[in-house]
Amino acid sequence: MKTLAGDMNSLQCPIPLDDYPQVVMAHGGGGKLTHQLIADMFQPLFANDILQNEHDGADLILPGKHIAFTTDSHVISPLFFPGGDIGKLAVYGTLNDLAMCGARPLYLSLSFILEEGLPMATLWKVAQSIRAAALEVGVKIVTGDTKVINRNQGNELFINTTGIGAIEHKLSIRPASIQPGDAIIINGDIGRHGMAIMATREGLEFETEITSDCAPLAGLVLELLKEEIPIHCMRDLTRGGLASALIEIALTAGKHITLSDESIPVLEQVKGACEILGLDPMHVANEGKFVIFVPRKAAERTLQIIKSQTLGKDACKIGEVTDGQPGMVVLENAFGGKRIVDMFSGEQLPRIC
Amino acid sequence: MKTLAGDMNSLQCPIPLDDYPQVVMAHGGGGKLTHQLIADMFQPLFANDILQNEHDGADLILPGKHIAFTTDSHVISPLFFPGGDIGKLAVYGTLNDLAMCGARPLYLSLSFILEEGLPMATLWKVAQSIRAAALEVGVKIVTGDTKVINRNQGNELFINTTGIGAIEHKLSIRPASIQPGDAIIINGDIGRHGMAIMATREGLEFETEITSDCAPLAGLVLELLKEEIPIHCMRDLTRGGLASALIEIALTAGKHITLSDESIPVLEQVKGACEILGLDPMHVANEGKFVIFVPRKAAERTLQIIKSQTLGKDACKIGEVTDGQPGMVVLENAFGGKRIVDMFSGEQLPRIC
Repeated sequence: MKTLAGDMNSLQCPIPLDDYPQVVMAHGGGGKLTHQLIADMFQPLFANDILQNEHDGADLILPGKHIAFTTDSHVISPLFFPGGDIGKLAVYGTLNDLAMCGARPLYLSLSFILEEGLPMATLWKVAQSIRAAALEVGVKIVTGDTKVINRNQGNELFINTTGIGAIEHKLSIRPASIQPGDAIIINGDIGRHGMAIMATREGLEFETEITSDCAPLAGLVLELLKEEIPIHCMRDLTRGGLASALIEIALTAGKHITLSDESIPVLEQVKGACEILGLDPMHVANEGKFVIFVPRKAAERTLQIIKSQTLGKDACKIGEVTDGQPGMVVLENAFGGKRIVDMFSGEQLPRIC
Repeated sequence: MKTLAGDMNSLQCPIPLDDYPQVVMAHGGGGKLTHQLIADMFQPLFANDILQNEHDGADLILPGKHIAFTTDSHVISPLFFPGGDIGKLAVYGTLNDLAMCGARPLYLSLSFILEEGLPMATLWKVAQSIRAAALEVGVKIVTGDTKVINRNQGNELFINTTGIGAIEHKLSIRPASIQPGDAIIINGDIGRHGMAIMATREGLEFETEITSDCAPLAGLVLELLKEEIPIHCMRDLTRGGLASALIEIALTAGKHITLSDESIPVLEQVKGACEILGLDPMHVANEGKFVIFVPRKAAERTLQIIKSQTLGKDACKIGEVTDGQPGMVVLENAFGGKRIVDMFSGEQLPRIC
């Protein structure tokens, strides 16, 4: 196996672009070109002791028997957006789901579905971004797959990542664990990822560009576990936004959630973009935000720890689990007015992750 | 969570087809329709103790720390073919990769990418097939994801499955373990899966229909491990066929492989279809065939065990690891003639898995 040293970003694409400026069907056919793509691009880029066995699957020795296991296919359009790209998102997205289980991320599988006609340079750029994100977070890509589908637009690229993480705490972090009295804390402002994508797609321009909040949450969560915060539940606020995440938890747990409208942080330019497009920030996707449910008496300490981290400096409490109709989320304003939070029913923001 | 009892195949699609005859973008948007699809179709269909926690990832206690981990995205066209469908293939394909590591399959993740316009009845049929295949093999689907992409042909459906299996043997099953003198045994005839797909696509008709050999190999492999066969390497013969599998092993191991041309079993109608289409059966994909490398002295016993199983009744020895130029596979005929086996370089059979 070849290995590439040094700064991968300064390297040229290892597939000769004069010969293969675009992905062709044979790159997914299992013959010479598939072999070349894997041996010359993916193996050196993601090199590690497990991947180099070049077997049908990865052979892993885990630190323990208790693991978290999660999968995500990424179909975002456009592939590159302010604050990130599909490669970074594919790594962070799956790792964040592991983090929400309170797991320490260990291993990722990586599966590409490439459209015939995809510029090879685009694939190279995305693959480099995946490498950088995996190195940053300290996970190994240990097994993979590449398929090619027939030409449509010529720029489609889908990525599935599936992750394994080690669960090393004794908590039961899941919707069923939330209890009346639990404080609900968020690690920052909502709606940036979805609006960054929409603004790019619709060509909206604002005084300040909206950038995605795309970020890996494992470090922050592991810090909370190290400090022995008695976490009841966590969820990242991706598709469907804060609203869907909380409604799903309320439904699964059979509990009632009350939010304070004024406490939910939203950037001015996100609010503005949402108004222009007729969207509610509560429904807009995030890629670096999560909510955490903790017993009321642990709330202050939880906030303190989250705020001490870069990805949590704007954290705040946004609500509580309360007695009330099970499976319902209610938003209260400063004047005591209440409205029921609903999942959106239209398309709203397709392909934002 | 709802649970569905009885024969799922006799049940009606749980999504009202009058309301949603086709998949729409909102089924992947994270709002009400996504929630309905998961809660009404996938959760009841794949119900198990882990999936019902409805968390961001599955929380698993494994039987041990040593596991195999493998991923596969399935993009086959057409979705239904003689002998199988994309759902069955998505389950068997990933489980067969686990089996090739000598692992006992435990858990699968399941991720759908659906094209807007896909008939809901098609999704229901594929999901039922996945359920049946998983039940047959005894694995649990424990976590999943669903995305929707914009309309192209209106009938695309891609499935990623990623699997975890328990490695409970002490062998080192990998290309690097093969040794000169090893016998190479195959569990039956080659080329059926690829030719079944091609015959369907090209509208070829033969006296006997070619059906895919699509089958789960774990039972057969676990039997060999139980009987303490000292396996050096195994590989299933999917994309790229027997040729690619053996060349990849020869290259990774730096060993020479000699095959006996006459010993490689091919059905008459597969041979005929290959001749019409100008293909070499050595390059054609299989979905229920594998090669196994064992020391010469264990060959007879290995053959005996494989032949005692339904999926191995036509097993035979096809060659040996020999001294000779490393990284090369050579085919010998009865008259002593030799030719080098090469990976194919064209597209040949795209989207056969």
